[in-house]
Amino acid sequence: MKDEEFEIRSEIIEGRNAVIEAFRAGKPIDKLFILDGAQDGPIQTIKREAKKHGTFVRFVTKERLDQMSETGKHQGVLAYAAAYEYAQVGDILAAARAKNEPPFIILLDNIEDPHNLGAVIRTANLAGAHGVIIPKNRAVGLTAAVARTSAGALNYTPVARVTNLGKTMEELKKEGVWFVCADMDGTTMYDLDLTGPIGLVIGSEGAGVGRLVKEKCDLVASIPMKGNIDSLNASVAAGVLAYEIVRQRA
Amino acid sequence: MKDEEFEIRSEIIEGRNAVIEAFRAGKPIDKLFILDGAQDGPIQTIKREAKKHGTFVRFVTKERLDQMSETGKHQGVLAYAAAYEYAQVGDILAAARAKNEPPFIILLDNIEDPHNLGAVIRTANLAGAHGVIIPKNRAVGLTAAVARTSAGALNYTPVARVTNLGKTMEELKKEGVWFVCADMDGTTMYDLDLTGPIGLVIGSEGAGVGRLVKEKCDLVASIPMKGNIDSLNASVAAGVLAYEIVRQRA
Repeated sequence: MKDEEFEIRSEIIEGRNAVIEAFRAGKPIDKLFILDGAQDGPIQTIKREAKKHGTFVRFVTKERLDQMSETGKHQGVLAYAAAYEYAQVGDILAAARAKNEPPFIILLDNIEDPHNLGAVIRTANLAGAHGVIIPKNRAVGLTAAVARTSAGALNYTPVARVTNLGKTMEELKKEGVWFVCADMDGTTMYDLDLTGPIGLVIGSEGAGVGRLVKEKCDLVASIPMKGNIDSLNASVAAGVLAYEIVRQRA
Repeated sequence: MKDEEFEIRSEIIEGRNAVIEAFRAGKPIDKLFILDGAQDGPIQTIKREAKKHGTFVRFVTKERLDQMSETGKHQGVLAYAAAYEYAQVGDILAAARAKNEPPFIILLDNIEDPHNLGAVIRTANLAGAHGVIIPKNRAVGLTAAVARTSAGALNYTPVARVTNLGKTMEELKKEGVWFVCADMDGTTMYDLDLTGPIGLVIGSEGAGVGRLVKEKCDLVASIPMKGNIDSLNASVAAGVLAYEIVRQRA
């Protein structure tokens, strides 16, 4: 199991104007840190932009900001921009069409651990999935840690970030895609037909697949569990299910 | 995919006598930090014990030791003890016998990332493997991070640590176990018979399965790879192969 050498693109944006500009330029901001108690005009603007873009804001001490700062000139605001650019859902469908294959998409419902997101993107690439879809809110984005764990797969496999996963599923259904979600109370994966245009939905580490998303799934698949604990690691579960799809498609 | 709440047992041992005693009591020491330049009698004894037990030693500055110390009384030596006790290989065979099942063991050839080791132990538990075997040298041991990522599986699935993985494989062959190792140049896993008493060997993140260990394997299995990068994350690969074994055994 070799790891590839690859480039990591990461960015810390510091200072009020720089952060406001980044938002307005549509740069994907993963995390935003604001000095606790700061209330002036530019800070209010930044908070509004963060709300508009669904960016998670953390209020922290000056010491914390000083620690994270690379320039020493954070002016009370520091943002982590996505290491990679996001794709559009349309790019994923186009990738499937270009290969003349029925779409195979992996959707992640609020994965929070960058190791898991990176490992899933790596799996998507090698299992022949055409792309990965993640939600904007709370979930981890394409940070440097994710890029590193993906071992270069981010250079090949498109990752789209959407505001509402359920709505995106509805739109994909119109394109003929149907959805299987992973959950313990489902039908054993070996007993399901997982061929055709498919979206595989994997839940978060903490709470599994959300209710609203689960309701939009056509099938619920479970991995046979013989042990004492509750569940597999989310990226391992994604791998096991993705390769069951590969096996059935072959 | 729910995470369980569970207890984490971790231990930092500080001071010359405490560390010497820990070694002599057979406590599994994962990491040993010694003040750079320290040469006195007790330090020599500790170095000898470390060599005898195959413990990796790092020589560090006083500032570094002060930083890691919990008591402020490290006397130039600080050790991390395994968070959990290791099992014996015999315990794993006994677990299989107790369930009246042919042994199913996962062997890891020098996994270095605690997230990967934890995720593999979790997979072993849920795929019905009777235990995990790891080597002593360089590879990560049962640290607190591993315990955390295993999500409680360490409480149920025995993990044995051996000096020489190849030698352990020879001994297990006498018990009727045969071995399949994961490598890209192998036969597609769907085309192999993976039933019966089996040891699944997974290579390290960097270098794959070592040559000497690979030579002792009866079969080489590969996971179908459709993408652009080299390999899956090690714990995902272990999961996909372990569940192919589950499927064939069912």
